Amino acid sequence: MAFAADGDGPTNTMLDMGLNALWILIAGILVLFMQGGFILLETGSTRMKNAGHVAGKTIFTVGLVSLVYWAVGYGFTFGGDAGDGLNKVLGLGNFFFNPAIVGSDGDSYPTTIFFIFQLAFAAVSLSIAWGGFAERAKLSAYLIFTLIFGSVIYPVIAHWIWGGGWLAEDGAQDYAGSTVVHLTGAMAAFAATILLKPRIGKFNKDGSANEILGHNQVFTSLAVLILWVGWFGFNAGSAVSVGDGFFGYVAFTTQLGAAGGAVAALLISWLVKGKADIGVTLNGALAGLVAITASCAFVDPWAAVVIGLVAGVLVFLCQMFFEKIRVDDPIAAMSVHGAAGVWGTLANGFFATKALVEQVGVGQAGLFYGGGGHQLWVQFLSVVVCGGFAFAASFVVLWIVKKVIGLRVTEEQEIIGLDLSEHGNYGYPEALKKTNVTSM
Amino acid sequence: MAFAADGDGPTNTMLDMGLNALWILIAGILVLFMQGGFILLETGSTRMKNAGHVAGKTIFTVGLVSLVYWAVGYGFTFGGDAGDGLNKVLGLGNFFFNPAIVGSDGDSYPTTIFFIFQLAFAAVSLSIAWGGFAERAKLSAYLIFTLIFGSVIYPVIAHWIWGGGWLAEDGAQDYAGSTVVHLTGAMAAFAATILLKPRIGKFNKDGSANEILGHNQVFTSLAVLILWVGWFGFNAGSAVSVGDGFFGYVAFTTQLGAAGGAVAALLISWLVKGKADIGVTLNGALAGLVAITASCAFVDPWAAVVIGLVAGVLVFLCQMFFEKIRVDDPIAAMSVHGAAGVWGTLANGFFATKALVEQVGVGQAGLFYGGGGHQLWVQFLSVVVCGGFAFAASFVVLWIVKKVIGLRVTEEQEIIGLDLSEHGNYGYPEALKKTNVTSM
Amino acid sequence: MAFAADGDGPTNTMLDMGLNALWILIAGILVLFMQGGFILLETGSTRMKNAGHVAGKTIFTVGLVSLVYWAVGYGFTFGGDAGDGLNKVLGLGNFFFNPAIVGSDGDSYPTTIFFIFQLAFAAVSLSIAWGGFAERAKLSAYLIFTLIFGSVIYPVIAHWIWGGGWLAEDGAQDYAGSTVVHLTGAMAAFAATILLKPRIGKFNKDGSANEILGHNQVFTSLAVLILWVGWFGFNAGSAVSVGDGFFGYVAFTTQLGAAGGAVAALLISWLVKGKADIGVTLNGALAGLVAITASCAFVDPWAAVVIGLVAGVLVFLCQMFFEKIRVDDPIAAMSVHGAAGVWGTLANGFFATKALVEQVGVGQAGLFYGGGGHQLWVQFLSVVVCGGFAFAASFVVLWIVKKVIGLRVTEEQEIIGLDLSEHGNYGYPEALKKTNVTSM
Repeated sequence: MAFAADGDGPTNTMLDMGLNALWILIAGILVLFMQGGFILLETGSTRMKNAGHVAGKTIFTVGLVSLVYWAVGYGFTFGGDAGDGLNKVLGLGNFFFNPAIVGSDGDSYPTTIFFIFQLAFAAVSLSIAWGGFAERAKLSAYLIFTLIFGSVIYPVIAHWIWGGGWLAEDGAQDYAGSTVVHLTGAMAAFAATILLKPRIGKFNKDGSANEILGHNQVFTSLAVLILWVGWFGFNAGSAVSVGDGFFGYVAFTTQLGAAGGAVAALLISWLVKGKADIGVTLNGALAGLVAITASCAFVDPWAAVVIGLVAGVLVFLCQMFFEKIRVDDPIAAMSVHGAAGVWGTLANGFFATKALVEQVGVGQAGLFYGGGGHQLWVQFLSVVVCGGFAFAASFVVLWIVKKVIGLRVTEEQEIIGLDLSEHGNYGYPEALKKTNVTSM
Repeated sequence: MAFAADGDGPTNTMLDMGLNALWILIAGILVLFMQGGFILLETGSTRMKNAGHVAGKTIFTVGLVSLVYWAVGYGFTFGGDAGDGLNKVLGLGNFFFNPAIVGSDGDSYPTTIFFIFQLAFAAVSLSIAWGGFAERAKLSAYLIFTLIFGSVIYPVIAHWIWGGGWLAEDGAQDYAGSTVVHLTGAMAAFAATILLKPRIGKFNKDGSANEILGHNQVFTSLAVLILWVGWFGFNAGSAVSVGDGFFGYVAFTTQLGAAGGAVAALLISWLVKGKADIGVTLNGALAGLVAITASCAFVDPWAAVVIGLVAGVLVFLCQMFFEKIRVDDPIAAMSVHGAAGVWGTLANGFFATKALVEQVGVGQAGLFYGGGGHQLWVQFLSVVVCGGFAFAASFVVLWIVKKVIGLRVTEEQEIIGLDLSEHGNYGYPEALKKTNVTSM
Repeated sequence: MAFAADGDGPTNTMLDMGLNALWILIAGILVLFMQGGFILLETGSTRMKNAGHVAGKTIFTVGLVSLVYWAVGYGFTFGGDAGDGLNKVLGLGNFFFNPAIVGSDGDSYPTTIFFIFQLAFAAVSLSIAWGGFAERAKLSAYLIFTLIFGSVIYPVIAHWIWGGGWLAEDGAQDYAGSTVVHLTGAMAAFAATILLKPRIGKFNKDGSANEILGHNQVFTSLAVLILWVGWFGFNAGSAVSVGDGFFGYVAFTTQLGAAGGAVAALLISWLVKGKADIGVTLNGALAGLVAITASCAFVDPWAAVVIGLVAGVLVFLCQMFFEKIRVDDPIAAMSVHGAAGVWGTLANGFFATKALVEQVGVGQAGLFYGGGGHQLWVQFLSVVVCGGFAFAASFVVLWIVKKVIGLRVTEEQEIIGLDLSEHGNYGYPEALKKTNVTSM
């Protein structure tokens, strides 16, 4: 405890640091808890024979990415000025991060806690990427991709927008990572699903698609609720400050965006398909959250609702589109995190208000608020460049893995399921032992 | 960040606001997380054929009520003085709530965060109501009821007790909503279950009841734990202040009440039925929490234990009573949230202490603490009036829905399950596809 | 609210207390939430026929231990100086704990909140003990053991190290309870599993072991994630202060330890068994967390990684060892909480740094940091004495229970499962009714 000499207790700047520290740590814990959402979302959206594999791999990839991000990734993102213009591209320093054990009077927050918060974001981006690997990738592919994604791919993009890189200099608005976290993860999933090819039985010879239902909608519903709740840490935590309470505004628009997404997806699926599809509705809520992630600090309440509503419709249309072009995306990563991530980032170009831009101090107002097209262009640029880099880098890494050791399990392994093929036991031994499950 | 001019950091009142803001937001997040408890409690207490529907509807009704409460409900609850005595009945103003983006020096908390906290309460009350709809109501009934409940029914009652309405003027003690949230939800469930009539197979022609077991006690147990944990946000968050640490006392009695409920229900069911029923024990813990919700800030520790113990016995007896009078209440909403809500509200009339009444600044001491019968009368009045209004308003709304579009799915739809009838797919497609599930 | 006389808001010491209060309450809530992890870990690691029993008993034992710890246990741990050297052994006072309703200016935190935090620890230790009871103990044994463990066994050990007892005087370093909480629980589990004897079908006549698979790896994976997240409350909460942000450092090493454990266990199981076992990996993450619990505040980041890695290997070897000596430990409590708890406590004797020892103010630096062998000896002593006491006390209590009313259900009851035998209904009635489940 750092009490002032006169015995009156800590100084006000110290109390302010403590308050920030507390919020950022709690926000980081909430974002780590989102992995519980991913465990349930991914297992619930896939089949019983892969459930142990899908769930368990989340735990060890979170473990592995923690070590990798500690050793290398954090240093490439926030490692201090690499100098000579190199800082536009990546940071250098703070590898095997060894922070000060306490904060100093005048610090905004202790770097230990900032590290945990940033690590939790990297882990979320990685878990989004797994959507494209589901039900057919080899375990070794997961481990190798974790190493590269956590050390280089994610850190570089995070540095560009949040670490003082070239898009930060341009005033790109991505408050909590519609682009940095969600689009990056979704593009990695896209690269994976293209290289892995669709699951056995997903598409017929005539090009039509079969619905491979996930096995547990209680899991997926609870997943969405956990992710929703964790998202308050994600978005409002990105204020990295309690200060004047602005983080509350961010939480407020986040709730409106999520709500808009859920409601719109329910209605559009009911309207178009004649039934209110549960999966679509759940993805709608997530899409609303993904979309509001970039814009939560920049837009008016009504705009947050609109951003959510559009995201809810968008995710429904995208899922149909990807199925039509025969891309198999088991967890809808590209629709939920990709399309909605793009929409959310662009939305700032339309809806960012002058007062909120001033409050946050990044970029300019959007098209509908007298800012002209400049911010929209910056947002467009950041989407294209970050999305493009994430896709290209992931594709190259996975292509090499494919050539050298192979990405996909054998056909036989895929049919018996990855629980047996990769781990030697079913995740649901009592439910699966007695019946020959061959469901697809 | 709002730092004082002299560079010493934020003022003390600003730091105080930040501290309150942080706690109220976290409390709001905890209360939203309780929806995860409701997802698991409702699905675990019902049958596999309805699991996707039951779980998924929580997500989109939370979404819908968020929009409705933002647009209308908040304004009827806290919308400022409606003037001319109308304020006794409801607030007016702040529709399509557009709050200040930051708090000002001297505010107790930012209104953005207060909104989130209050919205989370409204959503809990709604999810309690769903208990009476379970396994037989049409999806459209859920949507329509959400609109009315979130915009009018809940806001009016919340205004009466918390928004400066007539019961607030009378000094009604309902710290965190045994009446406002729990009894209101339970009365809506009661209206629904009466109008919907019992599920097929629940009662025999001779009037005797069949036990329709829920399908997953792991879900219901985890549900209770999540709700228990979330309840700290519910009760201790209702202090809407960190201040001198009184919110800790509220958390303390909350834990004792919950514990008392769980233990008493276990013992009474063991004693009476010869087996320690898991469902009863779980409901006992919840009943303890519901009961202590009104009284957590007003009673001594020993009284908190007693209130919990009584609630645990009460919930057991009530469940038997409702079964005897042939009311089908699948999630025991009326016993857990209704009976225990009434008991908890009345308990203040007996156990409220002078010191705690002074600390909170609402109402008077109870019968056992020298306050005479006045507070008991006020508590009785608020139970009768709020419960009566919630029941009557819900009944009228649902009666109209029943007449116009129908409340209940067809017999055939109910037998095949609402997952198929309302959404087109099973929530557990692998588990249910292979066997003809006709369990009731 | 306690505002200063001059109207400038609360004093700085009051704000500091509020900040601590907020963090300790949230940390306590996180630790209570770990019970959700135990519900899922225990049920997921056992069979369907026992799932309702295993899950539900967590709720009522948490309830019961809350009452017992409130009435007696807290007083034996922190009940004030018992005087005359008796204080070395246990505290006396504060039974039926009736704390001040608010904190006073100058307090570090309100005792109400400290109670909740400590109670949550006691409940975790108890839930660890249940690992040794799983799938064969009578319900009554759970209740009786809860009474003794919560009132005496755990409080005495907690007093020795944290309550100012004799090991505290010796400078034993156990920041958040590798010994106090985890080893104590594991030793109770050890006593139980020895007295209960292995489950039917676990070992063959020739001494070889059969694998009794748990029924749900989604549950166990989610369990580990919940425990991991809750552990931030456990470890960083043990700072019982926000202060200068040191609690962030504790959270930082905690994450590294967990990550090391998960990765090491994955790799060792892959290497040795040829398959990356999910269960081993999950236990590795937990072992990393258990090990870093004692040392999180005392060691450098690299050491935290090493402590986690060693714990991950250790848990794998221990599980094999216990199976070899025919000890049936269904939830691996002795490997995860016992062996890793011992390792983590001893690790301080090697890795504690001077700077961190100074920061925390307990004990001395370890062998590798110039402190000589003293701290290692103290750590060894505390492991032997606490572990020995926990085992002996638990053994005596359970031995008496065994003699008087019996510990284990009948063979027939064990075969049909404890859901039916102890509670009268399956926890999964739809899944188990239709097939005769006799899986072992």
